Amino acid sequence: MRAFQARLCAQLEAADGTGEFLTDAWQHHQSGGGLTRVLTEGTVLEKAGVAFSAVEGEMSAQAAQLLHMPNPAFFATGVSVVLHPRSPMVPIAHMNVRYFESAGGQAWFGGGMDLTPIYVNEAQARWFHQQLVAVCQRHDAAYYPRFKQWADDYFYLPHRQETRGVGGIFFDRLTVGPDGEAESLFAFMQDVGNLFGPTYTELMHQNRALPFGEVEQSWQLVRRARYAEFNLAFDRGTRFGLETGGRTESILMSMPPHAAWHYNLVPAPNSPEATTLAWLRKGVQWLETPDRLA
Amino acid sequence: MRAFQARLCAQLEAADGTGEFLTDAWQHHQSGGGLTRVLTEGTVLEKAGVAFSAVEGEMSAQAAQLLHMPNPAFFATGVSVVLHPRSPMVPIAHMNVRYFESAGGQAWFGGGMDLTPIYVNEAQARWFHQQLVAVCQRHDAAYYPRFKQWADDYFYLPHRQETRGVGGIFFDRLTVGPDGEAESLFAFMQDVGNLFGPTYTELMHQNRALPFGEVEQSWQLVRRARYAEFNLAFDRGTRFGLETGGRTESILMSMPPHAAWHYNLVPAPNSPEATTLAWLRKGVQWLETPDRLA
Repeated sequence: MRAFQARLCAQLEAADGTGEFLTDAWQHHQSGGGLTRVLTEGTVLEKAGVAFSAVEGEMSAQAAQLLHMPNPAFFATGVSVVLHPRSPMVPIAHMNVRYFESAGGQAWFGGGMDLTPIYVNEAQARWFHQQLVAVCQRHDAAYYPRFKQWADDYFYLPHRQETRGVGGIFFDRLTVGPDGEAESLFAFMQDVGNLFGPTYTELMHQNRALPFGEVEQSWQLVRRARYAEFNLAFDRGTRFGLETGGRTESILMSMPPHAAWHYNLVPAPNSPEATTLAWLRKGVQWLETPDRLA
Repeated sequence: MRAFQARLCAQLEAADGTGEFLTDAWQHHQSGGGLTRVLTEGTVLEKAGVAFSAVEGEMSAQAAQLLHMPNPAFFATGVSVVLHPRSPMVPIAHMNVRYFESAGGQAWFGGGMDLTPIYVNEAQARWFHQQLVAVCQRHDAAYYPRFKQWADDYFYLPHRQETRGVGGIFFDRLTVGPDGEAESLFAFMQDVGNLFGPTYTELMHQNRALPFGEVEQSWQLVRRARYAEFNLAFDRGTRFGLETGGRTESILMSMPPHAAWHYNLVPAPNSPEATTLAWLRKGVQWLETPDRLA
């Protein structure tokens, strides 16, 4: 996990061109800790966080209930990434890989990645999902459809009836059984992690030079506010971290650098903003024949 | 409740000078509805929301559990106010009065108000609490200490170990007993509501002309982000509204117009920002001999 963090940060720095990740090492109040790496004010990336942690401890009764855990003792390690680019033409992205062990002898892997364009570019969304399906199919043909649906359901704002973005894959509790599938699950998780750097930096390069103005910047602040709503009100990872006494600044490094809430903002019909909103729904099949908007 | 909403909006418009409340009427998907009134881009108030609602319906099993309700059928009415002034020298303020009836025959009143200065002005915080204690004492000498403590506990960000602001009063489930204290509880709730307009507009007038610059505006965005964190992650009213299928734009009108999240921002020692942070703790006795910072 730590080596992966270092590699990914180097890829992102190289692609950004000027930004540099600073490093904060921290200790958990029980046992373990982490390395939080944050890049701010890069050329492309306004705020990028890549957090590694490995923590052993006892979660609160409330957190154990949230996770349906009979025993509060746990070991958890993972890398979480959230990238907030400066330009509204470059999508926000999130990636996470994690491993969890409970005292009862259960062990599982989880992770995923999803893309949140400020303006949905249909071809790029399709390409992003093609990268995901390719990685999934190297491991199990059932993974992509299952984990794509899971991402649609997970990265969802019920009060807005909107997906967070164009989705991606999400998987949790891929359990290591009595016969031990640990190696194959670990390999899958590594492949997902290793896909993220090349995929995201390609999207950075494709979009970084696109022009934009005040309208696009204002819409970016609105979409970033939705990102904040999801993370604070719904994201289980964020809530688990805050519940288990995790390091607040590391957990909330995912928050956008700026956000704006306007009362009852409704984009004009047929505007690029309305077109993007129309894509933010569950069940879009990005790999099939173009699913044109009605 | 509706007459109170109209009166309060008129007071706030008069104090602002130029801003005007627009009105959105909405229907609940089950029964009832509300009037959401929002003022934006006033002279003093950047974004002000005053929402009335009266809703009858059945809450979800999840919401009923959240509220410890044996029966999901309910009637609820109230007025909620959140004011986000333009100047960082004028505090954010919140007020709520509410009445709730469950199908099981229970009825109760709730409400409160609290002040969130971007920069804590000790004398003004004391004055604000003096207004609250005066209203409480007209009804019950035990109210202020109890409801002040309740506000400290309620308007609290556990992951930051910070109160939202300088507190105020919070009360919930003041239950109408078999002998019927409905009249006296209703009178208390009305007095709390009626205190808000004159108290807040006085603070507007005292602070509206104070100078400020970029440092103060930047700190305002940080404190507004904390406000967003509290509302989305912890506020039971917000979560209850979103859970019961309330109107999202009315519930989230409380969100700040702009907010900023910086990674690991720590104010310089002895700066006005650090002094403010030092006040944001539970148990400050604003009515006693000045509790000087150590």
